[in-house]
Amino acid sequence: MEVYPKNFEALVESLKKLPGIGEKSAERMALAILDMSTEDVVQTSNALLEAKKTLHSCSICGSLTDQEICNICSNETRDKNLICVVEDYKSVFAFEKVGNFRGVYHVLNGLISPMLNIGTDDINLASLVKRVSELEHPELILALKSSIEGQTTTSYIKKIFENKNVTISRLAYGIPMGAEIEYLDMLTLDKALFDRKIISE
Amino acid sequence: MEVYPKNFEALVESLKKLPGIGEKSAERMALAILDMSTEDVVQTSNALLEAKKTLHSCSICGSLTDQEICNICSNETRDKNLICVVEDYKSVFAFEKVGNFRGVYHVLNGLISPMLNIGTDDINLASLVKRVSELEHPELILALKSSIEGQTTTSYIKKIFENKNVTISRLAYGIPMGAEIEYLDMLTLDKALFDRKIISE
Repeated sequence: MEVYPKNFEALVESLKKLPGIGEKSAERMALAILDMSTEDVVQTSNALLEAKKTLHSCSICGSLTDQEICNICSNETRDKNLICVVEDYKSVFAFEKVGNFRGVYHVLNGLISPMLNIGTDDINLASLVKRVSELEHPELILALKSSIEGQTTTSYIKKIFENKNVTISRLAYGIPMGAEIEYLDMLTLDKALFDRKIISE
Repeated sequence: MEVYPKNFEALVESLKKLPGIGEKSAERMALAILDMSTEDVVQTSNALLEAKKTLHSCSICGSLTDQEICNICSNETRDKNLICVVEDYKSVFAFEKVGNFRGVYHVLNGLISPMLNIGTDDINLASLVKRVSELEHPELILALKSSIEGQTTTSYIKKIFENKNVTISRLAYGIPMGAEIEYLDMLTLDKALFDRKIISE
């Protein structure tokens, strides 16, 4: 039973490939696209092609760029000795939106996960080791999530650079700003208590 | 402060024009698009252009089609005397998904709304009058929502065809299937009580 005209069906099916888009949302989006000006539709269509064609990983840090070396790595004012190690592009965007970090990044493009069969060779670790070996006073900030995979990866990186004159830190664990204490999970609360900061003595 | 590479930014901005898509969703969708095969991205890009280029309103009923006359109007087996009058394309899709209606449609493309300054000439009423005048035993099913605009439009259509040998009905009001009585609004409950159906006497 054909509910949609053919080309509408094709558009709905394409949109359904996007994350979090089901039949209803795809239908609503497709109708909104028909309501756009032809100019806007052409622009959107080109944006898809251009993004896919030009975007790739930076050859130094692995973050997203349309050049050989990304804007952050090629920025003279950023501290190349301070490397924030992250799981994916999204983490880079998140830190850049805050805008206070003046170092550079290293995108692992994944985390070690024996469960998912992702080993140490499957993420961008070799390039990190090489980068660090070329620096004078390297400092790594491990900004990985606090899941088992994140902790496994953090431990592994810590081990790699043991006794190699590399300062390594991880993000602080604790209660998120503005969170209600009563709704926090026990593990976070326990961490926050253990890592408490003395503010007066 | 540039957070995204230029072509990624362009893609995110394009996606944000879609309904219900904010910055976060657009970013997630854009990353998903980069993860697609080039073939899939080209296909999606073309689907946008083709849909915009080929889809328009059926010259008879006003519903969405890529031909001069839509599949429903040109289907010999559908009853042309039974016209379901709806607000928009989405209503046609909804009825066609159910699949039990064997008549045809008339898409008003809006509802009369003095508040929004939408008058009787701003929706597809003239074409409805013309269609009905060419039929032998026309029956109109007014399938409009139960808002003030829907009721105003229903009343107006009823008045147009008064004493013109046109059978007119509206959708039944009542409690939705599976709804919890206690969570229903009072108006619906009142309508359902008033329109109660005797099942044994």
